[in-house]
Amino acid sequence: MSLEVAIGLEDVELAARRLKPYLVRTPLLPVPELSELLSVPVYVKAENLQRTGSFKFRGAFNKIASLPEAARRQGVITYSSGNHGLAVAYAGKLLGVPVHVVLPEDAVPRKIEAAKRAGAEVVLHGHTSLERKAAAEAEAEKHGYTVVPPFDDWQIIAGQATIALEILQDLNKLAAVLAPVGGGGLLSGIALACAWKKPDVAVFGVEPAGADDARRSLESGRRVVVDHPETIADGLRTSTLGERNFAVLQRHVRGILTVEDDAILRAVRFLFQEAKLVVEPSGAAALAALLALRPELPGPVAVVLSGGNLDIRLMPTLFGGNG
Amino acid sequence: MSLEVAIGLEDVELAARRLKPYLVRTPLLPVPELSELLSVPVYVKAENLQRTGSFKFRGAFNKIASLPEAARRQGVITYSSGNHGLAVAYAGKLLGVPVHVVLPEDAVPRKIEAAKRAGAEVVLHGHTSLERKAAAEAEAEKHGYTVVPPFDDWQIIAGQATIALEILQDLNKLAAVLAPVGGGGLLSGIALACAWKKPDVAVFGVEPAGADDARRSLESGRRVVVDHPETIADGLRTSTLGERNFAVLQRHVRGILTVEDDAILRAVRFLFQEAKLVVEPSGAAALAALLALRPELPGPVAVVLSGGNLDIRLMPTLFGGNG
Repeated sequence: MSLEVAIGLEDVELAARRLKPYLVRTPLLPVPELSELLSVPVYVKAENLQRTGSFKFRGAFNKIASLPEAARRQGVITYSSGNHGLAVAYAGKLLGVPVHVVLPEDAVPRKIEAAKRAGAEVVLHGHTSLERKAAAEAEAEKHGYTVVPPFDDWQIIAGQATIALEILQDLNKLAAVLAPVGGGGLLSGIALACAWKKPDVAVFGVEPAGADDARRSLESGRRVVVDHPETIADGLRTSTLGERNFAVLQRHVRGILTVEDDAILRAVRFLFQEAKLVVEPSGAAALAALLALRPELPGPVAVVLSGGNLDIRLMPTLFGGNG
Repeated sequence: MSLEVAIGLEDVELAARRLKPYLVRTPLLPVPELSELLSVPVYVKAENLQRTGSFKFRGAFNKIASLPEAARRQGVITYSSGNHGLAVAYAGKLLGVPVHVVLPEDAVPRKIEAAKRAGAEVVLHGHTSLERKAAAEAEAEKHGYTVVPPFDDWQIIAGQATIALEILQDLNKLAAVLAPVGGGGLLSGIALACAWKKPDVAVFGVEPAGADDARRSLESGRRVVVDHPETIADGLRTSTLGERNFAVLQRHVRGILTVEDDAILRAVRFLFQEAKLVVEPSGAAALAALLALRPELPGPVAVVLSGGNLDIRLMPTLFGGNG
């Protein structure tokens, strides 16, 4: 038997109320060029404009805000060097909760500084994400911290699900939604909210061809591990879906599309030039599927741009040749 | 005696109603980093996300929509190679009005194609903007076209003024607003709308130090011409304010701030990295004044990011050195 879903629509609505004073109510923007290309209205949900530059803020904030007072006083710990870590640090700062982040020993100074600037205590440990996860759990055990996992957690999922509530508020005719999938926190949240609010919406995930564990997992009916995910989309380089996320996706997702890295880079450029938005590769993956695959979809379509923390070292690759 | 203002709040409200089905209701986004720096809440009005990539769409659309049926059938003509030309072409397409654009004989193919793609008929003539203006007026005379000027026109001003209505809807405590000033279409629209809706709002213009005709005009009480404006902000390279615009600014603007080009480029980078927005130099000028001058302002402050058509040939200058 697969896992029971332990949250309901009321948990997502509670998350939305908790987040409201702190959130950027990100715009849903029309993209005329894409609408023409696909012959259905296409909108982008610009979560790159969210606090800390990604949707991760929603889940992290909701998770910490849902903790009992005693746990909040003890503090939280996480092991992400990317958008999730930044989101946890910032959410903790807003809520007055001490945050500890385990970063790899070879973390670039920029990431360490960013975490510190966001108010987190940095612990350097190990190299792989598994080593860091273990270190975070050991620290949590020792000091009474609560671990804030990146995706496999119902309060995290409820936080990410608030994105779908906003899309449906702005576009009540929504027929299809595409979101990138790494561990599945974002996609499972969106799939649940749509299932509860408007079950006829077709929900699709998009992942890099070099990290296609979600597609393979849904096809085979069990969580597949991709040992060495290879993609420029660093936020989608997870080896496997979360257990809770997989259980949701199995029930509520229409399908998973995969895209090559060069299509992702084209999407980053397209968003830059046509939509005037800075979007990182992971954040542009869902739009890349529209540009590269031109799938036949019922409209209107909403595409989630999940993050904007584009590493500027990518700029020469993106624009060096004069475009 | 200076010129009478020939529009009222009802004209701005009419413009807003005309624009509503076609406009992107651009978001007003908080910028925590700037709020901390200035110790007052700072928001950006992201007109870079507007149709055609700049606020110019508002004025151009309102102007064409306000023409009598016969004039609309004859068509319109303009002489801008930049954001205004693009906006006129697109507005004409939406309204079914033929659009002619006079471009310089040495216009880059990219600009010619963009105008054609937007549905405009391109006339190549002359090199300077004065030559093109004369050519547009001659063509208009000959064929019965209506000239759509870039800023010195009451319907254009009423269109740009709708930006201030939206800012006031989103932020009713607004205390100060900064907008870039070239010919003064945007700034005069905002100044009028604020004067009518909330006269205690302090309205400031910002212009490049190398094109500081607005500051000098307001100081001397007459329209000063800067013969060779020099700045990277090509949209603000106008030699002088429009007559109508000057008349409004004299009455309703608190002051003009000037910024150097390097401060403008820093602002473009800041917006890219912190706000995840693609903004062209002219569009980032007002924000550059906050970053470079840190003026003491009553808050909350709204800063208009007027356009996002960043020439990607600037990318190596902006990000080439690895940031």
